[in-house]
Amino acid sequence: MRFEVTILGSNSAIPAHGRFPTSQILNASERLYLIDCGEGVQWRLQDCDIKKSKINQIFISHLHGDHIYGLIGLLNSMSLSKRTSPITIFSPKGLEEIIQVQLKYAGTVFSFPLTFYELETNKNQLIFEDEVLNAYTIPLRHRIPTCGFLFIEKPRPLNIDPDKIEKFNIPVEKIIEIKNGADFITQNGKLIANAALTFPPVSPRSYAFCSDTAYDTSIISIVEGVNLLYHESTFLHELQDLAKETMHSTTIEAATIAKKAKVGQLILGHYSSRYQDLSPLLEEAQKVFSNTVLGVEGKTISVEEKRRKIQDS
Amino acid sequence: MRFEVTILGSNSAIPAHGRFPTSQILNASERLYLIDCGEGVQWRLQDCDIKKSKINQIFISHLHGDHIYGLIGLLNSMSLSKRTSPITIFSPKGLEEIIQVQLKYAGTVFSFPLTFYELETNKNQLIFEDEVLNAYTIPLRHRIPTCGFLFIEKPRPLNIDPDKIEKFNIPVEKIIEIKNGADFITQNGKLIANAALTFPPVSPRSYAFCSDTAYDTSIISIVEGVNLLYHESTFLHELQDLAKETMHSTTIEAATIAKKAKVGQLILGHYSSRYQDLSPLLEEAQKVFSNTVLGVEGKTISVEEKRRKIQDS
Repeated sequence: MRFEVTILGSNSAIPAHGRFPTSQILNASERLYLIDCGEGVQWRLQDCDIKKSKINQIFISHLHGDHIYGLIGLLNSMSLSKRTSPITIFSPKGLEEIIQVQLKYAGTVFSFPLTFYELETNKNQLIFEDEVLNAYTIPLRHRIPTCGFLFIEKPRPLNIDPDKIEKFNIPVEKIIEIKNGADFITQNGKLIANAALTFPPVSPRSYAFCSDTAYDTSIISIVEGVNLLYHESTFLHELQDLAKETMHSTTIEAATIAKKAKVGQLILGHYSSRYQDLSPLLEEAQKVFSNTVLGVEGKTISVEEKRRKIQDS
Repeated sequence: MRFEVTILGSNSAIPAHGRFPTSQILNASERLYLIDCGEGVQWRLQDCDIKKSKINQIFISHLHGDHIYGLIGLLNSMSLSKRTSPITIFSPKGLEEIIQVQLKYAGTVFSFPLTFYELETNKNQLIFEDEVLNAYTIPLRHRIPTCGFLFIEKPRPLNIDPDKIEKFNIPVEKIIEIKNGADFITQNGKLIANAALTFPPVSPRSYAFCSDTAYDTSIISIVEGVNLLYHESTFLHELQDLAKETMHSTTIEAATIAKKAKVGQLILGHYSSRYQDLSPLLEEAQKVFSNTVLGVEGKTISVEEKRRKIQDS
């Protein structure tokens, strides 16, 4: 089952050097979650061969243009494509007003139900769950209300050992109970402990999206141990003062968060247009946290399933 | 001096087949006028090697998304580029509210003065003039308030014949007066009529932009004799009923307007996404009006200066 992030846009503010404003897709077990929505996202999805019809939830970190200007065009195209399934948008206050005023003057009524869920950006709380994952807000420090998002796969049921089904002659109707933790009593009345019949499921995988934000160590406890961390790195560290002033982060700061939070892998992004060549940003971050990659247009970063060993029985 | 239209986007509604939503640049004597502003217009300008900094006026025909979703991103990028010279936007009511609500939630204050001029879309009237041209509204019939635009070059001063300057020993300070129509009296007191000294300037060139609109013969008297007419042609004529229902036009209808208005050249555009190959649309229109071209991304259609003959003196 997939758990992977595809970068649709990696740039900050003014698009440049073939890079687009922030937008990403999280694919978790073939469910697609859209994170931020910079201008042109409908083309970016096409370019990355991702079907917009498969998106049902959209998570918006904040209302700066380079994170939202593609939303209205995407929704409009979904409607023109006669979509009927609902869309839910999670965002700080204001986005519903922004979308509705545009629909009002266009005389447009979307073909699908659209629900806005207004986020409290200063809280770390559960905002969404489905069969696949839970999503939580991550409070971030930026010039306007902003939050990141933490996505954690739901724990899967225990795996039952096929050999034990045969050995103990376990009937089909008992299998779901055992997968959910029940012990089993054989026809001879012998109790077989659950641990002797099952092995643990794959570990839930996790992705934390942190953009835009000033360097803020208070997020470390929230993103601790995630498999993947996207942390904005607008500037090289020599521009630390500018980063502070504009409430963005440097490469070193992003990598320091990754290191302190002991994450699996760090993805950089939200690059200033002053950088055509991104390799100095990568090199600088890797000095602090070696398992760092550049988020660039079209790149997909996957987290493999970690299968746990079968327990000795 | 140039008078030319560059097509930035030629498609209707959903972008498809590498075509973008409606946007055009009129270059008149190196002044750039932006007409409609579909999503991605800031990239389209880059792709066509047109400097956004040279645009000072933006003309918006109506508030459907495929004509305006690129505006906020363009303005935002102009501001991030530290533009200081003013922008004036001409549009039907509502665009100022759409832009302002987005700025409010982003906490953005543009670096340049932005003025909105609210159009009365049901009138044919002068809305703008500068040293180069006059711009007028063209009432159109669409599902929401919509107008086209007619751009007409200002008449230039008369051209003075250099041979006559020498022959009659005309002093420099008299030349402007003669170019504006004055006669000249020689040192010997002989009156030389203006017509014997000058020849007519080049003819003022004109461009009419008509999108989106149902077939409407009432525009013929407004666009009569223009050098260039852009008339939307969303559908082949076999879909005339759909065109009526959606208040768009067919190829034959666009060409019929061009023919009846005796225009110089017709540009087609605003193609339905159902057409990958546009040649059937062109062929159909050319049967009615032969001097028709397809408006396609990156194409520039120029109107040459028509120099008039020097009068016999």
